Amino acid sequence: MSFLKGATVGFDTENNKAVYVDQTLLPDKYVEKSADEIEDMCGAVKKLKVRGAPAIGVFAAISLAVLMNKSAADNKDSFLKEMELYANELVSCRPTAVNLKWAADRMLELARLSPVDKVRKDLCTLALSILEEDVKVCRRIGENGAELFKDFTSFLTHCNAGSLAAVRYGTALAPFYIMKEQKKEIRVFADETRPLLQGARLTAYELVKAGIDTTVICDNMASYVMKNKMVQAVVTGCDRVALNGDAANKIGTSALAVLAKYYGIPFYICMPFSTFDKSVKSGGDIVIEHRSAAEIGEMWYKKPMIAKGAKTLNPAFDVTDASLITAFITEKGVFLPQEIKNL
Amino acid sequence: MSFLKGATVGFDTENNKAVYVDQTLLPDKYVEKSADEIEDMCGAVKKLKVRGAPAIGVFAAISLAVLMNKSAADNKDSFLKEMELYANELVSCRPTAVNLKWAADRMLELARLSPVDKVRKDLCTLALSILEEDVKVCRRIGENGAELFKDFTSFLTHCNAGSLAAVRYGTALAPFYIMKEQKKEIRVFADETRPLLQGARLTAYELVKAGIDTTVICDNMASYVMKNKMVQAVVTGCDRVALNGDAANKIGTSALAVLAKYYGIPFYICMPFSTFDKSVKSGGDIVIEHRSAAEIGEMWYKKPMIAKGAKTLNPAFDVTDASLITAFITEKGVFLPQEIKNL
Repeated sequence: MSFLKGATVGFDTENNKAVYVDQTLLPDKYVEKSADEIEDMCGAVKKLKVRGAPAIGVFAAISLAVLMNKSAADNKDSFLKEMELYANELVSCRPTAVNLKWAADRMLELARLSPVDKVRKDLCTLALSILEEDVKVCRRIGENGAELFKDFTSFLTHCNAGSLAAVRYGTALAPFYIMKEQKKEIRVFADETRPLLQGARLTAYELVKAGIDTTVICDNMASYVMKNKMVQAVVTGCDRVALNGDAANKIGTSALAVLAKYYGIPFYICMPFSTFDKSVKSGGDIVIEHRSAAEIGEMWYKKPMIAKGAKTLNPAFDVTDASLITAFITEKGVFLPQEIKNL
Repeated sequence: MSFLKGATVGFDTENNKAVYVDQTLLPDKYVEKSADEIEDMCGAVKKLKVRGAPAIGVFAAISLAVLMNKSAADNKDSFLKEMELYANELVSCRPTAVNLKWAADRMLELARLSPVDKVRKDLCTLALSILEEDVKVCRRIGENGAELFKDFTSFLTHCNAGSLAAVRYGTALAPFYIMKEQKKEIRVFADETRPLLQGARLTAYELVKAGIDTTVICDNMASYVMKNKMVQAVVTGCDRVALNGDAANKIGTSALAVLAKYYGIPFYICMPFSTFDKSVKSGGDIVIEHRSAAEIGEMWYKKPMIAKGAKTLNPAFDVTDASLITAFITEKGVFLPQEIKNL
């Protein structure tokens, strides 16, 4: 296995495998796994073994490097054709986060430029550099957030936009890790984040591991926590940001933004610029992934919990209006929603 | 057993027992149970086997009739002392809903007035009349709601304020049952309502049974449903309404009210007047019940779902500001929050 310290996805270059921590087994078991077949890679992404917008981007880059390393293609045309097939398969696994496409496009672009006798090595180098870049970018997001939050000590976050969702620091949780490094005492409320409980299982897991005071609440308790002035800011990650500053993120994020506005609490989104999608004008154009009914009524339970005969609706993401977002915290600094498109 | 048709609490006068449907076993099993000891009655209320503001009020009245029927007290003083002890025990089981206290007070008031040789019979008569009154009152709420909603066909509700929460029609769901009687086609979205899943388990159960098109969503999807114009009104029950129109109801209700305001959707609360507490000036004075961490992290799951070392917060109710409530739908008509105190 070949992980950077604290990382949750990695590139085992010795054995040519994409490696990852299986997040569906957390918080119970911390299990490292590897893949070198497209089916296993797509399975890991679809089943959310690897999840989080930045993490799946990095994982796609590494997966393409691994797959093309093994490819028998001996001319540019067949090499590119094969790689495009893999890239399309990976990108179609999760339609909402732009990072999959962003990473695949960077890898394909290099493959088109690189001579066929060097292309495999070049792809490996680029995949490793995308991995390391994520760590650096997320650390910068954390530093910019910690600076912005210098008067705040209590926060609410949603889903998991931490080290498990990226390579190491994460996005929304990065400021908390930096504040912890700075010996600042903070308290974080984590929405459990139904239906997949990324907050209860993953965010709580990594914050507790980092020694941060963590309180898990049900998603519907955020209004209580805000009304009772228990948090000073709401901080989330995101999966795709449109030109106008609308942001798609885990289902429930838009509710937090509306509540924060009502209660007069600032609402921040942390994102690497790779999450910004210039090809999308506004949130209405972002494709929202819908997932299975079983995730809501059965997945974690001893027995089915939804009365028979009832339908379900399971949108995995929602769009938060730009007007509800106080600012975006990025690796390049802190920006208003209307400033994003000029960068 | 002695239930009215479709009722979920009842009075088995032949065997002197309070009877109820155990709601913790739904939607899996529909099991009728009975109790004639104070410990079992309190256990049923605390463990939410009997739940819902109107239902626990009726259940308290029946329980007091059953207990005092069995009492050996032979003078007014000892009879009243014993009854007050039972009443206090029952009322303290759930601090937020006022209906427990309302029913216990009515029963105690009668006991004080009634001669000792008639008091047991009088209490039984009053308990039965409180039961029947609930059915009538809820039907009126339903009729008033159905009239108000004549141009609406799609609704969102939270928790369970249906027949399982009252004796028969319920409060928030009563308008839907009346519309169904009127052969109107409607669609209801039910928040699953974490942590106890009253929406998924109970509301979906009774709506489906009534043949109403029902869709269960996670609580954090309400914003998505409203933003995408899938509902025309939000309708909930409540547990206690203060003089100024602030309303305590199941945790998460206040979030729905804030969202509804933001998205321009009317937000209605259905309540019998027994839920109105003139002794409480505003929502800030309402005691909010906090329940166990296990309800959030363990209760329904195959294994614990919250990472070890994380705290939890589990307020069972929250207060919705009067300014967010479009109107109260009651047995006496539809009223603005500021009108309630004059009635």
